[in-house]
Amino acid sequence: MEIPVEVMRIAEEIKTMKLRGAGKIARAAAKALMISALEYNGPNDVNSFITYMNRIKKILLNTRPTAVSLPNAVLYVTRDLGRIPGSFEDAKRTVVERAREFIKYSLEAKKKIGVIGAKRILDGETILTHCNSSVAIEILKTAFLEGKKIRVYATETRPLFQGHLTAKQLLEIGIPVTLIPDAAVRLVMKNVDKVIVGADTVAANGAVVNKIGTSQIALSAHEARVRVFVAAETFKFSPATVIGELVVIEERSPIEVVGEDFLKNYPSIDVRNPSFDVTPPEYIDAIITERGLIPPQASILILREVFGWTIEDYIVEKLSEV
Amino acid sequence: MEIPVEVMRIAEEIKTMKLRGAGKIARAAAKALMISALEYNGPNDVNSFITYMNRIKKILLNTRPTAVSLPNAVLYVTRDLGRIPGSFEDAKRTVVERAREFIKYSLEAKKKIGVIGAKRILDGETILTHCNSSVAIEILKTAFLEGKKIRVYATETRPLFQGHLTAKQLLEIGIPVTLIPDAAVRLVMKNVDKVIVGADTVAANGAVVNKIGTSQIALSAHEARVRVFVAAETFKFSPATVIGELVVIEERSPIEVVGEDFLKNYPSIDVRNPSFDVTPPEYIDAIITERGLIPPQASILILREVFGWTIEDYIVEKLSEV
Amino acid sequence: MEIPVEVMRIAEEIKTMKLRGAGKIARAAAKALMISALEYNGPNDVNSFITYMNRIKKILLNTRPTAVSLPNAVLYVTRDLGRIPGSFEDAKRTVVERAREFIKYSLEAKKKIGVIGAKRILDGETILTHCNSSVAIEILKTAFLEGKKIRVYATETRPLFQGHLTAKQLLEIGIPVTLIPDAAVRLVMKNVDKVIVGADTVAANGAVVNKIGTSQIALSAHEARVRVFVAAETFKFSPATVIGELVVIEERSPIEVVGEDFLKNYPSIDVRNPSFDVTPPEYIDAIITERGLIPPQASILILREVFGWTIEDYIVEKLSEV
Amino acid sequence: MEIPVEVMRIAEEIKTMKLRGAGKIARAAAKALMISALEYNGPNDVNSFITYMNRIKKILLNTRPTAVSLPNAVLYVTRDLGRIPGSFEDAKRTVVERAREFIKYSLEAKKKIGVIGAKRILDGETILTHCNSSVAIEILKTAFLEGKKIRVYATETRPLFQGHLTAKQLLEIGIPVTLIPDAAVRLVMKNVDKVIVGADTVAANGAVVNKIGTSQIALSAHEARVRVFVAAETFKFSPATVIGELVVIEERSPIEVVGEDFLKNYPSIDVRNPSFDVTPPEYIDAIITERGLIPPQASILILREVFGWTIEDYIVEKLSEV
Amino acid sequence: MEIPVEVMRIAEEIKTMKLRGAGKIARAAAKALMISALEYNGPNDVNSFITYMNRIKKILLNTRPTAVSLPNAVLYVTRDLGRIPGSFEDAKRTVVERAREFIKYSLEAKKKIGVIGAKRILDGETILTHCNSSVAIEILKTAFLEGKKIRVYATETRPLFQGHLTAKQLLEIGIPVTLIPDAAVRLVMKNVDKVIVGADTVAANGAVVNKIGTSQIALSAHEARVRVFVAAETFKFSPATVIGELVVIEERSPIEVVGEDFLKNYPSIDVRNPSFDVTPPEYIDAIITERGLIPPQASILILREVFGWTIEDYIVEKLSEV
Amino acid sequence: MEIPVEVMRIAEEIKTMKLRGAGKIARAAAKALMISALEYNGPNDVNSFITYMNRIKKILLNTRPTAVSLPNAVLYVTRDLGRIPGSFEDAKRTVVERAREFIKYSLEAKKKIGVIGAKRILDGETILTHCNSSVAIEILKTAFLEGKKIRVYATETRPLFQGHLTAKQLLEIGIPVTLIPDAAVRLVMKNVDKVIVGADTVAANGAVVNKIGTSQIALSAHEARVRVFVAAETFKFSPATVIGELVVIEERSPIEVVGEDFLKNYPSIDVRNPSFDVTPPEYIDAIITERGLIPPQASILILREVFGWTIEDYIVEKLSEV
Repeated sequence: MEIPVEVMRIAEEIKTMKLRGAGKIARAAAKALMISALEYNGPNDVNSFITYMNRIKKILLNTRPTAVSLPNAVLYVTRDLGRIPGSFEDAKRTVVERAREFIKYSLEAKKKIGVIGAKRILDGETILTHCNSSVAIEILKTAFLEGKKIRVYATETRPLFQGHLTAKQLLEIGIPVTLIPDAAVRLVMKNVDKVIVGADTVAANGAVVNKIGTSQIALSAHEARVRVFVAAETFKFSPATVIGELVVIEERSPIEVVGEDFLKNYPSIDVRNPSFDVTPPEYIDAIITERGLIPPQASILILREVFGWTIEDYIVEKLSEV
Repeated sequence: MEIPVEVMRIAEEIKTMKLRGAGKIARAAAKALMISALEYNGPNDVNSFITYMNRIKKILLNTRPTAVSLPNAVLYVTRDLGRIPGSFEDAKRTVVERAREFIKYSLEAKKKIGVIGAKRILDGETILTHCNSSVAIEILKTAFLEGKKIRVYATETRPLFQGHLTAKQLLEIGIPVTLIPDAAVRLVMKNVDKVIVGADTVAANGAVVNKIGTSQIALSAHEARVRVFVAAETFKFSPATVIGELVVIEERSPIEVVGEDFLKNYPSIDVRNPSFDVTPPEYIDAIITERGLIPPQASILILREVFGWTIEDYIVEKLSEV
Repeated sequence: MEIPVEVMRIAEEIKTMKLRGAGKIARAAAKALMISALEYNGPNDVNSFITYMNRIKKILLNTRPTAVSLPNAVLYVTRDLGRIPGSFEDAKRTVVERAREFIKYSLEAKKKIGVIGAKRILDGETILTHCNSSVAIEILKTAFLEGKKIRVYATETRPLFQGHLTAKQLLEIGIPVTLIPDAAVRLVMKNVDKVIVGADTVAANGAVVNKIGTSQIALSAHEARVRVFVAAETFKFSPATVIGELVVIEERSPIEVVGEDFLKNYPSIDVRNPSFDVTPPEYIDAIITERGLIPPQASILILREVFGWTIEDYIVEKLSEV
Repeated sequence: MEIPVEVMRIAEEIKTMKLRGAGKIARAAAKALMISALEYNGPNDVNSFITYMNRIKKILLNTRPTAVSLPNAVLYVTRDLGRIPGSFEDAKRTVVERAREFIKYSLEAKKKIGVIGAKRILDGETILTHCNSSVAIEILKTAFLEGKKIRVYATETRPLFQGHLTAKQLLEIGIPVTLIPDAAVRLVMKNVDKVIVGADTVAANGAVVNKIGTSQIALSAHEARVRVFVAAETFKFSPATVIGELVVIEERSPIEVVGEDFLKNYPSIDVRNPSFDVTPPEYIDAIITERGLIPPQASILILREVFGWTIEDYIVEKLSEV
Repeated sequence: MEIPVEVMRIAEEIKTMKLRGAGKIARAAAKALMISALEYNGPNDVNSFITYMNRIKKILLNTRPTAVSLPNAVLYVTRDLGRIPGSFEDAKRTVVERAREFIKYSLEAKKKIGVIGAKRILDGETILTHCNSSVAIEILKTAFLEGKKIRVYATETRPLFQGHLTAKQLLEIGIPVTLIPDAAVRLVMKNVDKVIVGADTVAANGAVVNKIGTSQIALSAHEARVRVFVAAETFKFSPATVIGELVVIEERSPIEVVGEDFLKNYPSIDVRNPSFDVTPPEYIDAIITERGLIPPQASILILREVFGWTIEDYIVEKLSEV
Repeated sequence: MEIPVEVMRIAEEIKTMKLRGAGKIARAAAKALMISALEYNGPNDVNSFITYMNRIKKILLNTRPTAVSLPNAVLYVTRDLGRIPGSFEDAKRTVVERAREFIKYSLEAKKKIGVIGAKRILDGETILTHCNSSVAIEILKTAFLEGKKIRVYATETRPLFQGHLTAKQLLEIGIPVTLIPDAAVRLVMKNVDKVIVGADTVAANGAVVNKIGTSQIALSAHEARVRVFVAAETFKFSPATVIGELVVIEERSPIEVVGEDFLKNYPSIDVRNPSFDVTPPEYIDAIITERGLIPPQASILILREVFGWTIEDYIVEKLSEV
């Protein structure tokens, strides 16, 4: 059976990074699975349908092998496929329903995190944030709209200056913001009440992979007894880390750091541009998810709750060669 | 339908603090719900019953908005109300049974904690305790009655000197006790083998809210590699903190600190009297509950186990405006 | 009814330490339970069968009262006995199936841990290990066979020099190894990328009981921001610690430390030979189990997942006098 | 030769604690030595004079064997006696001059410390102080009179409530002050910019002996990256600690802690009332002396500079039996 | 008497920052004092000469009120002026000699620091440096020319990218260098053997004021047990801090951080650009001076040795109003 | 002129390690210098004498290039040679006197350290020591003979088991002693009141080089707030470290660790045997010298006081190529 055109288009957009942002990618993948199920016109038996859906799964998973929200969306939608006995109709309906559920769920998650996180902010507090996290900003916005007078320090976030974006977004909301170089974090920490950052990936042991610099901000906060909160939807939790997989730290082009001229003129100078670093759980007070606030060490619990049987399968499958 | 007189009386006693102590309040609330169900004489359909019970719930919850054992008792008893389909009779029976269950359970919890905690105390050890926690004392008593020769440091616990009460209670049991000013904790810590304290509230991230001074005792213990145990029944775990709610630190009258004359003579001197402080999970080795000993970071697990679906509802309800 | 001869033989071998090694003991106990069920020829009612099996349970549990894998195997196999209603045939079949399951499971666990743990090792890294842990070596071996160039520091592990054994086993695999005195750990730590050790017992609060010296290695690693991994099958997790039981630290003969002559010549010199020490969870980055990698604080979750209802029973039974 | 009456009177007043406060005692001793020299009417040879002065020295030193400012004053005044060759007249003149010098010096010291310490306080800062230190208050006063808007947390300082005195003195100066129980220090620490306390004694290794509770305040400050300053005139530095002498921690009457009734009614309850504790140098950012601001580890330098040859003598004399 | 033209020119160049670099400024000031003495043509009495020199002193000190090397040079050269009795000729000769001495001394200091510091670097080590310190580079160069194979991580050092300069200078010497964003320090720290940075000012308590970001690098190093060395000539030690003066942290134009367009377009976004931060002594293993390697807490000793009587005067003069 | 035979013999004995122990070596070197001066029969002018003595100096310094007490003795004795103008007779007499002084001094030093250190030990305390330090034992002995009831933990100190020697020596004195494997230090630390060890070398930044294992003992003590004291005569302080020299860690034969057979049978197993490690100053509470108790960071002060001008010369000479 043919793969629907729309599905191929979505896969292409994810691959070429036309589609960006953990949440958008995850929802697009869920949508692709839903379309695939709806447009399926092969034989009406459950096994054929499963074979077909597994092909779609593979196509989607191969678009961005290192992302975490993408496989999580796929796992969620196809979780019971082939597990719970039932007719072809049942299987199809389940896929469609779970895809809709995921999309709705992920759209609500950010808002819920905003509400939960805002409760942790007191009137008059100064918050430091890093890079440009939409969930972290949602929390700040919610707190501000609740009438709390807050101030924010935003790091410029070298090399791509995403902190400028954060500053502008906060400005629009009306929140007073101070932009600082990344190196000034420890200096201003004595004026900071809380640190709130986003996450790229949350690992099974509670470590948080996020924009380069996050871990030294967390370290500085820890040194000064300032609480660190990480805002992360549960689809950013990585089931693969449960079986030991290391989160790969993307290394981007040195051009972003020094520009083309420098690279040309000084080819012997090595320039590194790692995108992320790993903040150990002991420097994080809590992770704020749409399912509630948890200590980082309870990440494994979230993984079990959210990915349930699927994670078992995953372990079984990945360790099957043993 | 009328609210039974006895229920109103209980609500009043909780409100006016005639009834004190987390356990007593919780059991009284469960009892009130049981009486309400038993004395219900409205229409025999399940919806009317639910509406009626919800009114009772609200009355009880409003008596002491900041306590944690009270709503926990109410949540426990009314957990399945309206969730599991069934007849009016089923609903009524369920409320009564769960109320009985809760009362029995909470009465046994203290004893169980005593038994579990006592296993952690070795013969010849010196224990430091703070304020006047009945579960902490239960542990000391159990260990002592098992024949372990223990000694106890009790802090005087300003401003209300609850440490005097603790010292007297230990004396009665026969445990040698030394009373010290709160400021002497770090000095005597080198002679202490373990710290055992109670808890007012345990938060979702494993932080423990307890009598002012607890957190600096825990810090001093941590500095000296002395283990800190918190004794707490599971109904002291706060489901509200899962969705980010901050535990409100009660601020009591300055009179307790300086007396009336001082306040009159020096009205310009600000006097603070916070009742509690927050001990972060990294300074706590384990929380001893009636369901076993857990690391503080697993508090969220206890919350899920104990409050189950109810906590989901709670999240749904509280975040419903999102 | 008679206890089968083979079962008595197994019990004897465990008691006299002919059978050694946490895994082997556990599997032997499961096998003994299976044989007992298969050879049962008493009355065909479920209650008689349960009474009989409880006798076998008691015999096995009494062979080595301080081990942890033994009662875990017994608990696993007899978990649903008398709990889930059913016929005598059901009960018998369940015991046999669960015993087989356990044996197969425990045989696969080491290999799975090898695969999971190896993912955490990067090409070119230097690993420090202590004593002679078969699961830790399995991880090193797996990583090496995956083509990663690793080097290992092995401590000699006084007093019995198990580190010599480790060094020889690594040599056979082909892994370059450096043997050091236990006192040199902190000196070489600056050249170490990761620490990987085994475990004797994992406690409910995430503390790891392992060969004496482990805790100061973990402390030195923590001081130098070197990650510490503990490799442990889930049957090394101790349900008894959930109810507060302390893991007893075995104290072996001083002869192992100073030899016979010294003891004879200097009877007034006290010589201690504790076998194990306790590493607190804050010095452990993750525990690698066959069910995945977890932060130590999530040990309680593993205990709940693996020992399920049984642990509840255990608590109920042990606390029944309350 | 007779001891002058006035000298005997001073010795008596020091002994009976009519004279209190480290500074006052030290100046009184210096004055007694000056009077002794001036009123000396024995033979006009230097040796007789020295013998006479040594008697006076001994009398004064025996009045309060544990104080530190007293022997320091005596050492200072008699420093060159018998060391530098010279006539009787020279010796007499030197004693008188050095006594005057010491008195003037110690009177100026407090003011200088006020000026130096005030430079460390920024406009708008919140300072926490403990007990009732006149030099610490001098710093706060100087900063305030320089126009800096400061706020102060004063601990009540159990058992004698010297914090009330501090609060009243600050109130008189015009500095807004908040009084808190000793146990609330860690709670308010997040609002504190600096801690400034006095000292009873500064030891050779930089440890500071001060009012009970100081060390846990310093620990709490250290945990929160809040700077701790100790204000101390150099005559509070203990030369005896250079040769290992431990500073004796005075243990006062339990009546101060629990009152007479409690002691009578509960004679079996042990009550402790240690006056001081020891703050290790790693929790102190700087000691502010009249000779400048130094890190605590440089205390030994101050001792050498201030007590010069005398300390050598002291070591020689005290270790002469070796 | 007229101020020599050349002296006025030097003062002007320092003021307008034509002359940059702590060493250059210090030597220029010494030279100005020398010229002033040589060209003095007033009355031949010592008092007139002193009055004249004091005027010059004041002019020089006012050019850059916050620098530290400048007043140190002036203090050094004029140290004995008016203190040691002597003729006009003596006074003049002393000034000239001390000025020459200072200039020679400061020129040799960098080389000496290079030699001393290089001894601390082992063959094969990886060093991390920050900003562009000529003394730190001198150490790296010396080690490299001694044949040690070293590698260097240089931070880019926002906002002015002085790290680019460092990378280029190391490249010229032949040392392999990797340039990283400031936020990547903690990530690469696991590969770093030592941190070597320069200093702007060393305070009396051993704190080091240096380019913004230094303190969080030192914190990251401390967390990973990586040694931190600060290279600093003794004329960077601040005598003023002995009497409590705070080192003023220069705040430069926000244009350097975000550029002109950003400032114009987003005038409401506050942008901070602090030039320096303060690294506390506990994160510094040693300060490498031309007088040898010292622990930071011994800075006060260096100050006493180098600035001797002058510092006493300084204290006396500054505290004279007391 | 000929070198006296006796001097050559001493040099030989030091070289071949017939003479052992920091104190003995140092005194032998002083004696050799004294003999050289006394037996000098060259021309009676000061320059010839100096040339001759410099030859002797060189011979002695070359016998053991890495020791620290040897050059310290030589530096002490020849300190003023050629510096203070004077006749040949003066120079000769000075050498002889200073040599005698040094010998007497060093003999008294151990006793003084015993007296000073014993003051730090309280009645009833438990002390842990490592290896076999004669000064540490002197302290324990002095305390014991003063009537203090102490107990000692002695580590066995692999690979050469010097701890056995310590245990036997303590036994003879009458002090109860417990011998433990090196790996058991952290386990017993909770029962330890103080750690007292010796030193091989004390560096300028306060770091202490001592028997392998010392640094992890100090780390374990620091973790448990147990004080660590290092006993060291001032001739163990290394002036060379002032100019950056690293203390070379001697690496001894692997035979001591595994024996000959192992080495023969397993030539591919690398075996390391480092003799010393470096304890950073932050884990040391005080160094006990015969000149008093100092914080480790004041080591540089001791170096200045004891080696005075010589150290300046040393710096000048060693850095003269600059």
